[in-house]
Amino acid sequence: MSDSKKKVCIIGSGNWGSAIAKIVGENAANLDSFHNEVTMYVYEEMIDGKKLTEIINETHENVKYLPGHKLPPNVVAIPDVTAAATDADILIFVIPHQFIRTICATLLGKIKPTAVGLSLIKGFDKAEGGGIDLISDIITRLLKIQVCVLMGANLANEVAEQNFCETTIGCKDRQLAPLLRDLIQTHNFRVVVVDDVRTVEICGALKNIVACGAGFVDGLKLGDNTKAAVIRLGLMEMIKFVELFYAGCQLTTFFESCGSIEVLEKEMLEGQKLQGPFTADEVNHMLKNKNLEDKFPLFTAVHKICIGEMPVSKFIDAIRFHPEHSVKETQATA
Amino acid sequence: MSDSKKKVCIIGSGNWGSAIAKIVGENAANLDSFHNEVTMYVYEEMIDGKKLTEIINETHENVKYLPGHKLPPNVVAIPDVTAAATDADILIFVIPHQFIRTICATLLGKIKPTAVGLSLIKGFDKAEGGGIDLISDIITRLLKIQVCVLMGANLANEVAEQNFCETTIGCKDRQLAPLLRDLIQTHNFRVVVVDDVRTVEICGALKNIVACGAGFVDGLKLGDNTKAAVIRLGLMEMIKFVELFYAGCQLTTFFESCGSIEVLEKEMLEGQKLQGPFTADEVNHMLKNKNLEDKFPLFTAVHKICIGEMPVSKFIDAIRFHPEHSVKETQATA
Repeated sequence: MSDSKKKVCIIGSGNWGSAIAKIVGENAANLDSFHNEVTMYVYEEMIDGKKLTEIINETHENVKYLPGHKLPPNVVAIPDVTAAATDADILIFVIPHQFIRTICATLLGKIKPTAVGLSLIKGFDKAEGGGIDLISDIITRLLKIQVCVLMGANLANEVAEQNFCETTIGCKDRQLAPLLRDLIQTHNFRVVVVDDVRTVEICGALKNIVACGAGFVDGLKLGDNTKAAVIRLGLMEMIKFVELFYAGCQLTTFFESCGSIEVLEKEMLEGQKLQGPFTADEVNHMLKNKNLEDKFPLFTAVHKICIGEMPVSKFIDAIRFHPEHSVKETQATA
Repeated sequence: MSDSKKKVCIIGSGNWGSAIAKIVGENAANLDSFHNEVTMYVYEEMIDGKKLTEIINETHENVKYLPGHKLPPNVVAIPDVTAAATDADILIFVIPHQFIRTICATLLGKIKPTAVGLSLIKGFDKAEGGGIDLISDIITRLLKIQVCVLMGANLANEVAEQNFCETTIGCKDRQLAPLLRDLIQTHNFRVVVVDDVRTVEICGALKNIVACGAGFVDGLKLGDNTKAAVIRLGLMEMIKFVELFYAGCQLTTFFESCGSIEVLEKEMLEGQKLQGPFTADEVNHMLKNKNLEDKFPLFTAVHKICIGEMPVSKFIDAIRFHPEHSVKETQATA
């Protein structure tokens, strides 16, 4: 990135994209490090016979995805992703993950080579050969830029209402870290930056599976004890998953807000779609391929229930004799 | 302990004591390692003109503290704590922590010298010189026996109803660990044993402070994002507290169910008393004495609100610029 004022582009304008546009727009207007204008790529739709981009640029409200909240006037909606992104130094990706390859293909060669990405996208992509791809890796591979991530226990509407909350940025670049923090942090939206980018991103995706499991417990009316156990077992599988497939990750990262599961279920319910079953499917693709389903009984059960292979009534039986329940020998010998 | 069948005594018969008596009584009846009869010390009270111990021994129901659940017939209520404990190999302590010194003084010299304790008591005691005492340390010091602990995200009524849940036993003794696990574990009450006894106990106590904070957020109607942030910041202060004052503890223990905070608030509401304000007071006694209040803004704010020194409306302001919110330099340099 050059040293002059950074230009920011937000790629995406759903519920979460619009909430983050509110924050980023205000910070860009107030801070010297950033260019005043923030562009926002909006997938064009007609609302009551009028273009959504025109409504946003005239009324400063995303009436479809974040009604009732004003965006700052320096956030400019643009229906052409290349036009929105071409001058940007910082590209914030906040679109459904199934569109990321198409968007990157469109942008290839049209963006600044010095640009950096910040991905807010939760989920994986199935990779060839039975593995999974991280979204940040896909962006880096397709656009040849550095990509940081932002994940947290954040409900878009509560963020837009300026309720106090936390988020985690994963960023390895020590020059870039304070810049991204300044772009995102407000009095009410508190940022912790860690350098363990992969764990931040993987937590953001995997916890949607755990949220499905917690939702099953609600549906089965099994109570808070059971829900606490399911959430904890899910967290243990998240840790095991990262240890197995992404060496070098740090245990401390799971204590950041990206690892926090408290607001998950509401996030699922309020979101435009249920991310959990998709992530469970992507993860199962990998676990099955590597013959590891029995080491991840909760992830596996959630997937089987979501695809109709297991009745939800069998959920607790599937995790009752979890490998976690034991005298922990590794610790007992220490 | 001798190698013959172990005799178990439960010291305490409140809501949680009675729920654990149901489990321990059934396991003792079914397993060869334990003597069939389990004694339960019951603080005698009159219920509609009849002694509580007589009611329990005749109807096998603690009508006052766990109504609606039958205790196994091999659990025998005894109003004299010395008579209940004198032959026991395993003493399960589950009384309010303010009574522990008196009970230990009564039992000194009257119990088997080979007996071991298992403490289910959450909370600290103020120590002379501005510090705090762990309950397990008090028992060890006063009775000169080894003491293990059991803490979890457990609502007594849900445990009694046999909802699926988890608990953590802290036990350093590798011979004893599987025995305690067998005594406590059922199909629905799953046990993890770790050897990091102190962290298990400290988590059990400190999370009551965090639960108070989460309760404030509910009272202020600040939403789920904010509650997630408060719970996470509380967990970070729990970790910092243990690191500062109890060297040698393991970070992984905070991922056990003793560190889980999900069911806390209900536990507070359903419990006979609110443990949180007492624990906050004990902890503040230590932090103030060591000039460390500003390093623990959440613990400190909860205490000040509980004693009326701070209005609850200032709670979020007190944690807004928490030392946690930063670019984590220790990690960024790694």
